[in-house]
Amino acid sequence: MESLRTIEIIGTAAFSIAGTFAAMKKRLDIFGTFIIAFVTALGGGTLRDVLIGEVPVKWLFEFSAGFVVLVSTIVGLSFRSLISNYHNVLLFFDSIGLGFFTLVGIQTGMSLNMHPVSCVALGTITACFGGVIRDISLSNIPLIFQKEIYATTCILGGAVFFILLKLDVPKIPVEITCLVTIVVFRLLSVKFNWHLPRIWKTRKPSS
Amino acid sequence: MESLRTIEIIGTAAFSIAGTFAAMKKRLDIFGTFIIAFVTALGGGTLRDVLIGEVPVKWLFEFSAGFVVLVSTIVGLSFRSLISNYHNVLLFFDSIGLGFFTLVGIQTGMSLNMHPVSCVALGTITACFGGVIRDISLSNIPLIFQKEIYATTCILGGAVFFILLKLDVPKIPVEITCLVTIVVFRLLSVKFNWHLPRIWKTRKPSS
Amino acid sequence: MESLRTIEIIGTAAFSIAGTFAAMKKRLDIFGTFIIAFVTALGGGTLRDVLIGEVPVKWLFEFSAGFVVLVSTIVGLSFRSLISNYHNVLLFFDSIGLGFFTLVGIQTGMSLNMHPVSCVALGTITACFGGVIRDISLSNIPLIFQKEIYATTCILGGAVFFILLKLDVPKIPVEITCLVTIVVFRLLSVKFNWHLPRIWKTRKPSS
Repeated sequence: MESLRTIEIIGTAAFSIAGTFAAMKKRLDIFGTFIIAFVTALGGGTLRDVLIGEVPVKWLFEFSAGFVVLVSTIVGLSFRSLISNYHNVLLFFDSIGLGFFTLVGIQTGMSLNMHPVSCVALGTITACFGGVIRDISLSNIPLIFQKEIYATTCILGGAVFFILLKLDVPKIPVEITCLVTIVVFRLLSVKFNWHLPRIWKTRKPSS
Repeated sequence: MESLRTIEIIGTAAFSIAGTFAAMKKRLDIFGTFIIAFVTALGGGTLRDVLIGEVPVKWLFEFSAGFVVLVSTIVGLSFRSLISNYHNVLLFFDSIGLGFFTLVGIQTGMSLNMHPVSCVALGTITACFGGVIRDISLSNIPLIFQKEIYATTCILGGAVFFILLKLDVPKIPVEITCLVTIVVFRLLSVKFNWHLPRIWKTRKPSS
Repeated sequence: MESLRTIEIIGTAAFSIAGTFAAMKKRLDIFGTFIIAFVTALGGGTLRDVLIGEVPVKWLFEFSAGFVVLVSTIVGLSFRSLISNYHNVLLFFDSIGLGFFTLVGIQTGMSLNMHPVSCVALGTITACFGGVIRDISLSNIPLIFQKEIYATTCILGGAVFFILLKLDVPKIPVEITCLVTIVVFRLLSVKFNWHLPRIWKTRKPSS
């Protein structure tokens, strides 16, 4: 439980900072920036909890998550003048959040004795859908649907998690390997421009 | 129950193929295409189940729906090179899905002893909102809000369903008539460019 | 309870008319206009009820809310030819709805013995998210994220509500002051172009 809380805090902080920089790119005001940071950080977990019936959602009663978002937003805003490349900062914190929140979602599924496939689905939803809501709110095409490998990274990390677990690797190394796999794979895939095959080679698509 | 399953499978397959072709028009990669097929096929039913409190949602525990989406996506991708008009294929399978999922939603409402108006509302939500989520995700203006008759077709089909039921027509012919009404009316309305009256005749609207 | 119903009806009617004029600006057909009015009026409350687990959502069983939307849409459509400035009408009714629905959300939270911060969050969600769904559906950038003070107005009104309550002001004057604060502050903020500080002064933002 305590370990769950720590990874939740790190994931929330990372996604809040990613959301703050995404909002800055669109010139939102301070309050709009906070809301975007909030939905980026808590949107995926909220969708997960609604889908599994874990309502009322926790952040309506416990303010720790909202507090982490607030502090992270302020930190992100404070450091903006030191940063010359918003996009790289966004990418870095987004990758951290992706790893930690995939793990949070997998653990949520395991605590409900769900099938590994369901656990990985919950991990992917937790990690990816905050960013989807953020991108739709900012009128961007969601990152998840663009050419970059995104949700696939979460599924890969989830597969690593359950394969190692089957091999009787202890829980802490399994979690760390899952985390590192996702963060590193995500960063490498952007740096080297890896992408999945597209399906429109045979013709020029319409509109 | 068995009959419900069969119509669910057909609706899921049809909407998955429609989603696959919508994703192809936007040049998504293979995984993005699968996700779009998934939300098109299961998004409406998921929203319905969340609104009526039927959670955890079924597809998190039973993988048959996800399997149908996967197979349908692969079939859609395999046949793409034989097809010269993505738009017509999308329209055809979308119409099939519209009919079957309206029926699924109506049956869900009836199994909860809901009022016919509520049943038709659930049928319309089940049939239409997967496509709304698909269109918003792909940054298209949702089909449902464009000039074509769309949600109205589901309501028409639902009205036919409950009128025939009141007239003591047996259940199977009622279901088939409802299905045929929706699919045929949808295809005809596109072919002959039927549309509801707009409300902006008196002035040139601003932006 | 009776007072809750009255403010719900006024809020629903105001947001329906706001939604109707937003739909007219986009030239939707009659049914699309009704759907937009419906999601504008009931979307925020629906999200609130899903987040706190108050499902099945009420409007699936009680048709009074849908009836208010229908009548308001017809009224909005009927008066359109008398109106020369859609934008001002939209703004006026949106402000009324914002005030009444913030109050509805606060009362929902209080009836569940929630913390004042949670009550204000529920009020803000109830008041703001119908408009967010409306704007995303119409492919507009949500008003809440633009430069105008919007959600902040709800939070201000909520703060006024709980400060007066702590000072032992009776309930009815507290509610009226909260309402007036929100509506007047919203209208003034648009008229005098008030806005929160932005955070992009130091550099020209990318894309």
